[in-house]
Amino acid sequence: MSMTEQNQRLVLAQRPNGPVRPDHFRLESVPVPALADGEVLVRNHYLSLDPYMRGRMDDSKSYAVPQKLDEVMIGGTVGEVVQSRNAKLAVGDKVVGMLGWQLFGKGTDRELKKIDTSRIPIQAYLGVVGMPGVTAWHGLNQIIAPKAGQTVVVSAASGAVGATVGQLAKLKGARVVGVAGGPDKCRAVVEEFGFDACVDYKAGRLAEDMKAAVPDGIDGYFENVGGAVLDEVLKRMNAFGRIAVCGLIAGYNGEPLPVQNFRSILINRLRVEGFIVSEHPDSWGKALAELGELVASGRMKYRETVSQGLASTPEAFIGLLSGRNFGKQLVKLV
Amino acid sequence: MSMTEQNQRLVLAQRPNGPVRPDHFRLESVPVPALADGEVLVRNHYLSLDPYMRGRMDDSKSYAVPQKLDEVMIGGTVGEVVQSRNAKLAVGDKVVGMLGWQLFGKGTDRELKKIDTSRIPIQAYLGVVGMPGVTAWHGLNQIIAPKAGQTVVVSAASGAVGATVGQLAKLKGARVVGVAGGPDKCRAVVEEFGFDACVDYKAGRLAEDMKAAVPDGIDGYFENVGGAVLDEVLKRMNAFGRIAVCGLIAGYNGEPLPVQNFRSILINRLRVEGFIVSEHPDSWGKALAELGELVASGRMKYRETVSQGLASTPEAFIGLLSGRNFGKQLVKLV
Repeated sequence: MSMTEQNQRLVLAQRPNGPVRPDHFRLESVPVPALADGEVLVRNHYLSLDPYMRGRMDDSKSYAVPQKLDEVMIGGTVGEVVQSRNAKLAVGDKVVGMLGWQLFGKGTDRELKKIDTSRIPIQAYLGVVGMPGVTAWHGLNQIIAPKAGQTVVVSAASGAVGATVGQLAKLKGARVVGVAGGPDKCRAVVEEFGFDACVDYKAGRLAEDMKAAVPDGIDGYFENVGGAVLDEVLKRMNAFGRIAVCGLIAGYNGEPLPVQNFRSILINRLRVEGFIVSEHPDSWGKALAELGELVASGRMKYRETVSQGLASTPEAFIGLLSGRNFGKQLVKLV
Repeated sequence: MSMTEQNQRLVLAQRPNGPVRPDHFRLESVPVPALADGEVLVRNHYLSLDPYMRGRMDDSKSYAVPQKLDEVMIGGTVGEVVQSRNAKLAVGDKVVGMLGWQLFGKGTDRELKKIDTSRIPIQAYLGVVGMPGVTAWHGLNQIIAPKAGQTVVVSAASGAVGATVGQLAKLKGARVVGVAGGPDKCRAVVEEFGFDACVDYKAGRLAEDMKAAVPDGIDGYFENVGGAVLDEVLKRMNAFGRIAVCGLIAGYNGEPLPVQNFRSILINRLRVEGFIVSEHPDSWGKALAELGELVASGRMKYRETVSQGLASTPEAFIGLLSGRNFGKQLVKLV
């Protein structure tokens, strides 16, 4: 790498007041950062795009501090160490971290985790063997905890989290029903990821299709979307059912998202829990070990949608928020 | 008692399709039941009226079997044994049971529990030392579990359950805020039951008053009503808050009850749990021992609204559903 190489990055230019547009971001060319003692320079190979980023763009109360204006957008990254002033990380090491929407970033060995890409593709550490995978594992095992024979419904079932939830639930002997948008995604949910059934929420028959898909009711629900799907699920929950609330993507643009069937929580004595996987450090080690082995041995399937080049990131992110991706949304930089 | 005395009872005559009216019930005169071996005849002194009865009047899916048409309305009762064919229950014994809306009922020693009325008034066994008291105890201790200094909000705070929740939470060192309808109820909630503050939801300033009453946010919420109060509470919940869903009286008449701020469950990583106290037998012994001692020693306050005579029951029940009672709603029969 030449020392005159420039870094390119995307900063938050303004906060959205409704749907995200490309001009909420600004592409900047800045010098590659200089290293202090203990730091390494990383050339990012892939950026991760995730729904939680939409929440960070607002200035309102949330579980995390808002993304600052005019600073590089937050985000998970995988890449390769290209300069090192840290004895624990050598040039050529592959690392996962949170370096954001940019070509180069720097960090210490406490901020960057070395990863083994011999049996697992590097970008999987942003998906099924990363934060989305641990999210799936935690919600399924620590909140839903399905017994064999119980019915688990997963919304956004073709997504990085949802597809993992469903496959883990199948391994536990549950009947697993996905909810996804469109016949292609639904077909993949069943044929590729092995769900027992999939409800296409865009087909206009949500109530009837949900009813048909869960003849024994619903014991566990992994909630990724909110809105009409949540209400149909609430109608069909069994007594003592569990709902893990991981995301409510239908409301990320700030529109009201009323829930009609809250009453089901009382009638069916449900337990509903919101969670953020970063607050459950105990789950990470167990989850990553189990998921890594399942991926390396080919027993865990996953899909990716890969956008090319940093400049494509805003459009890819907008596509993610409206469900145009299929599986983990990545941006390939190298 | 003369053997020619007639029993009077109220049966469900038709199911309501909206608000409950007196003509949904029918008063009948029938013979006092004859006793089989092992049974006792009880003259009821008080009937308990409770919001859950509204749910039983419908034929829809609920946590309990519907009240049957043309049969005596379900309900808790306290009374005195007037005939006995059971060695464990003598004439003159006071008992609590579920004999329903009638002057006389019968049962065995497994269906009727003998009670000690020497230090506790008989009707308290239908309220603070009965099902509503255990409901309060279980939701507060097993779901909300407040720490000293945390803020607990209780809706229907002047009711039999709510007033008990608040006093138990104060004993645990929590800051306790009630929600009640009207200045009289609110004053009693603070002055009589010792809550730190009370929000009058009928005053037309629910959002502002709630905000002022919970300067440090809300850590626990005991949910008795649903509707607008629930939405205001959801707005102000702190991270890792707990909501015990015990009742949703605002929706008992079947009108839709949308919740706008469900998203708070995710943002604040809340745990929301519906419960029915009859499904938690482990709580009863501990709760009744603690509540009985608090009542007998005068440290637990409670209020009653007493309606006179069996024929007054339908109007008293309708009043309960619209919040016209203050404290435990009873019907006095003797």
